[in-house]
Amino acid sequence: MVEVQAVLLSGGSGTRLWPLSREAYPKQFLPLVGDDTMLQATWRRVAALSSHAPIVVANEDHRFLVAEQLRVIGAPTPRIVLEPVGRNTAPAIAAAALIARADPQHEDGDPLLLVLPSDHVVRDDAAFRAAVIAATPAAEAGALVTFGIVPQAPETGFGYIHADTGEGVRKVLRFVEKPDAATAQRYLDEGGYYWNSGMFLFRASRFLEELAKYRPDILAAARAACEHLDPDGEFLRLDRDAFAASPSESIDYAVMEKTDAAMVLPVDIGWNDVGSWSALWDVSEQDADGNAHHGDVIAIDSRNSYAYAQRLVALVGVDDLIVVETDDAVLVAAKDKVQEVKQVVARLKAEKRSQAALHREVHRPWGSYDSVDAGPGFQVKRIKVKPGAALSLQSHNRRAEHWIVVRGTARVIRNNDVFELFANQSTYIPIGAKHRLENPGAEILELIEVQSGDYLGEDDIIRYEDVYGRG
Amino acid sequence: MVEVQAVLLSGGSGTRLWPLSREAYPKQFLPLVGDDTMLQATWRRVAALSSHAPIVVANEDHRFLVAEQLRVIGAPTPRIVLEPVGRNTAPAIAAAALIARADPQHEDGDPLLLVLPSDHVVRDDAAFRAAVIAATPAAEAGALVTFGIVPQAPETGFGYIHADTGEGVRKVLRFVEKPDAATAQRYLDEGGYYWNSGMFLFRASRFLEELAKYRPDILAAARAACEHLDPDGEFLRLDRDAFAASPSESIDYAVMEKTDAAMVLPVDIGWNDVGSWSALWDVSEQDADGNAHHGDVIAIDSRNSYAYAQRLVALVGVDDLIVVETDDAVLVAAKDKVQEVKQVVARLKAEKRSQAALHREVHRPWGSYDSVDAGPGFQVKRIKVKPGAALSLQSHNRRAEHWIVVRGTARVIRNNDVFELFANQSTYIPIGAKHRLENPGAEILELIEVQSGDYLGEDDIIRYEDVYGRG
Repeated sequence: MVEVQAVLLSGGSGTRLWPLSREAYPKQFLPLVGDDTMLQATWRRVAALSSHAPIVVANEDHRFLVAEQLRVIGAPTPRIVLEPVGRNTAPAIAAAALIARADPQHEDGDPLLLVLPSDHVVRDDAAFRAAVIAATPAAEAGALVTFGIVPQAPETGFGYIHADTGEGVRKVLRFVEKPDAATAQRYLDEGGYYWNSGMFLFRASRFLEELAKYRPDILAAARAACEHLDPDGEFLRLDRDAFAASPSESIDYAVMEKTDAAMVLPVDIGWNDVGSWSALWDVSEQDADGNAHHGDVIAIDSRNSYAYAQRLVALVGVDDLIVVETDDAVLVAAKDKVQEVKQVVARLKAEKRSQAALHREVHRPWGSYDSVDAGPGFQVKRIKVKPGAALSLQSHNRRAEHWIVVRGTARVIRNNDVFELFANQSTYIPIGAKHRLENPGAEILELIEVQSGDYLGEDDIIRYEDVYGRG
Repeated sequence: MVEVQAVLLSGGSGTRLWPLSREAYPKQFLPLVGDDTMLQATWRRVAALSSHAPIVVANEDHRFLVAEQLRVIGAPTPRIVLEPVGRNTAPAIAAAALIARADPQHEDGDPLLLVLPSDHVVRDDAAFRAAVIAATPAAEAGALVTFGIVPQAPETGFGYIHADTGEGVRKVLRFVEKPDAATAQRYLDEGGYYWNSGMFLFRASRFLEELAKYRPDILAAARAACEHLDPDGEFLRLDRDAFAASPSESIDYAVMEKTDAAMVLPVDIGWNDVGSWSALWDVSEQDADGNAHHGDVIAIDSRNSYAYAQRLVALVGVDDLIVVETDDAVLVAAKDKVQEVKQVVARLKAEKRSQAALHREVHRPWGSYDSVDAGPGFQVKRIKVKPGAALSLQSHNRRAEHWIVVRGTARVIRNNDVFELFANQSTYIPIGAKHRLENPGAEILELIEVQSGDYLGEDDIIRYEDVYGRG
């Protein structure tokens, strides 16, 4: 019986799948293929191999998303390791390994770590689980096993692993950089070369030993960051200064390319890293014309295109096109030019525009708000509050607020008054009034807020108390 | 000194410029080029030639749009002739001619009619006015003068007029149907062929005489429709049965191709009928890459494309594309396939979807409403009421309404109460309450309405009194 400790890496800045993916909500949190988000699908893929809570290494800004998305699919409450800054995969996996070794749920203190990016698609989950089981004896014997993807095409966008001959798990001959087209074709023709997927299986102790051998500086930084762990509910906050002191290095460079213990198991599991809109078209179900659609799409005389619609999108006479329509931005891109999408994001960032980082619907620990309308002196938000959640006790200097409950129950504190509102009831929060909104019910609370005032920025807020520890 | 009676034809069903143009709001009412709508631009083009109020022949459903659009540019209060059904241009112009002859503002009872479609672009207004002045002597002498556009390309989408040789106004040799490509090229090479623009100048009496000669049935129907004119404020409503009895025929077929009095003045005035999205790209200002943009558009590595954005549209690596983004629908079309846009509209109509006929913002005689958000059991509308306007006295059986004023002043009748609300004040209309909303102020009234109930259709309305005569 195989038993692993899942380590889910929740990195990614979200520029390549803009405008669906944004800095504050990158692709691992989106349901790009199927109903699950990619993070959820990653956990479900390996849940049968693990009776332990997963360790998720995540960006501090995404901590509530990770917690919420795993909670709603009934995953065991995860250990969410918060990176104060990004330092690539080697320090992140080192911290996860140290935390796993110290975790009392592992009696022997040395679990098998199954390290997985949380933003890849795997079509054949069963084949992947079978591969993990097949790799386990080698990992238990001390190997650092990586899963090499059997290439389907001469891809130049991935690194390759040159494997020894043989069956099943075998020695890595060498890791090779992203090849040019001719080299990629030669790899495909010769065989024995596999795409480097960034998925690993090894004993925590073995990884740490090898890291100590080749990059003791990284190990030292990770160890220091974990010594001063700042526990915050389900979150394990790495020490900022200690972690920031680590070199930024991938596990490949730091360990896998150097260690003699590197082994590879070639796998054919329907893997795709969804690194671009054209990759998403590749993995999406296509109709007879080669079109893949999500949402309300009408296609006339169009072929081999991907369209994502939140409202209605009509395609007329187009081929090989990507169309992505969201609340506040529409992307129209030639399928062979999707790498240039990041130029759009760069320009939005340079102009400090919200569409680079945020969706129109903004997620908060207590729920979310969506700016559905705005005009001179007013804006309208739809606010959702999770069952049992509460916003901070706050006041505003420049705006008044009207609240109309449209679903669920609101408990309102307004200066010295406390009262409940049900669907179709409303209240008014004058400028300067201290107020708090809570959802005391078991279902979601939804309300329409009409803000009125001469300044309506999010920064006009004085917080008096906040259960989520925000200033 | 030239003095004409402008007759503006406000037809057009709005399918070719979907989704910007809709059945309820077709292209003559849109500011497609410049700040004026095309109807407004048409009036401004000829206002210097006419001291009389224009006659506008319009679809009954568009009457408030016509009135409002001409009012806001300070045009004299027009005679708006309402067609109960569309019967093409011959009956429409016949009715306008009969009405003009009977109009006491014309002392001699026989004005020069300048008949103009209201949905064409003319780049060189001064050249057009000069052409009208040049055509006047011939029209005064009894000719039916048409303006022929000097062709810029071998267009196959227009009918042509073969003109006699000579200078200025000259005899029409014949009208020819839309040609094939080779014929169109020959017309261009030979010269003497002009595009049929559908613009005319003639004495009202002369047109009616020629119509009596060739199509007395159409004249009789128009006369009968005008005998029972139903005046309704500034609207002149043609008798439904009498007008419907007219054959549906164009002025070209009914009169111009038959009469010996047809003459043509070739003009080079920057004319475009904006009959498709690619035509709109043609007449729009283009940047160095050939892109024409309206609104918030970011174009990376893209050429010869037209993009209309209400939010943000990003183009990446695309050529010869049309992208039109509205509140409730996005069109992405190859520029050489824009004729197929009507297939999208046909499909929406077949599926009885609102996007075929209506924008998200719906215009009413009193103002407009825009459905900015909706969810189970509620919807949010932004309502604008013009100064001095009032909605009907009404009630709803299935929904309650919350109103929050965000601009201007509202006068509210709610059962037996009458009260005023100012910006940042709100009220509640319970299910079943008789209510009316008025704007007693001099500026626009804007409010947010949150509807709450188990059924939220527009047809849940009981009207008790309506100043606009709606049932």
